[in-house]
Amino acid sequence: MSRPAHRRPEYHKINKDLFVLTYGALVAQLCKDYEKDEDVNKYLDKMGYGIGTRLVEDFLARSCVRRCHSYSEITDIIAQVAFKMYLGITPSVTCNNSSRTEFSLILDKNPLVEFVEELPAGRSSLSYCNLLCGIIRGALEMVHLAADVTFLQDRLKGDRVTEIGITFLRKLDEKKYRRKK
Amino acid sequence: MSRPAHRRPEYHKINKDLFVLTYGALVAQLCKDYEKDEDVNKYLDKMGYGIGTRLVEDFLARSCVRRCHSYSEITDIIAQVAFKMYLGITPSVTCNNSSRTEFSLILDKNPLVEFVEELPAGRSSLSYCNLLCGIIRGALEMVHLAADVTFLQDRLKGDRVTEIGITFLRKLDEKKYRRKK
Repeated sequence: MSRPAHRRPEYHKINKDLFVLTYGALVAQLCKDYEKDEDVNKYLDKMGYGIGTRLVEDFLARSCVRRCHSYSEITDIIAQVAFKMYLGITPSVTCNNSSRTEFSLILDKNPLVEFVEELPAGRSSLSYCNLLCGIIRGALEMVHLAADVTFLQDRLKGDRVTEIGITFLRKLDEKKYRRKK
Repeated sequence: MSRPAHRRPEYHKINKDLFVLTYGALVAQLCKDYEKDEDVNKYLDKMGYGIGTRLVEDFLARSCVRRCHSYSEITDIIAQVAFKMYLGITPSVTCNNSSRTEFSLILDKNPLVEFVEELPAGRSSLSYCNLLCGIIRGALEMVHLAADVTFLQDRLKGDRVTEIGITFLRKLDEKKYRRKK
């Protein structure tokens, strides 16, 4: 179930509702499969990680972004280019520490929850959109950057906004992660 | 987890790759959960049915399609408007019987399998894209039309094209399915 390197899918756009509802079906299925919210969150993150590692190559090819020289630049690319391309929104970015390694993406709107009124009963610790954290983590790892990515606030949990925190940990060893050609 | 009637999600487009990979994660999860391909197929159809019943209202509002007077017209709308809007492709349509109740949608390209090289090992009866059949069935039922919708050919199974068969069964009782206002 892998895509050969020479075949690049044609670029085209689709209406987001089908994706949003399919994502809802995925979360519902995982809630059936795992009793604990923590396990659902972990699994969504893991799935997202896999998706991120696969998306990043096409993202870099299509977006034509240049090499970034700071974590701040990288976070701006995630917010302004990647989120725009894949979810049609542009979160605002804040920097949370003086060493400029911790950032937040603030989502005023979150298309992934457009059909979701509230968290399912008994699922108050569910990070419904945790796939996004995994995607960002996976994509960053493919460009040799290790990061913790978690939801810091979530409108579905009553917070005013939805906030994804990105903490850059260290630069990964390029050789270890470079693809064999 | 339901959307109130007054809130209509804003229309915007997204890059399809995130959807395609998320759908792959959903199928992989169902393959973990259900040993038999038939059960995975059934579950994908059921999930799709739920999605179809929710998509149709927005589809009708956005597409501004007029009342159809034949099954042939309906199938053309599915192929030329709905597939274009939600998957970015336009399948060709053939009619398969003289009473004009059986049709096929022929998909030369299928974006849902763009990242899929082949069916997973031991999953030769999997209808990987069966969600689509459920969506069509669910959406049709919401406009009072009962139909059987199944894959007749599938490139992932070695067929030359991918073909979805739609057999219209009967007009459903409008009263039974009309929404209470």
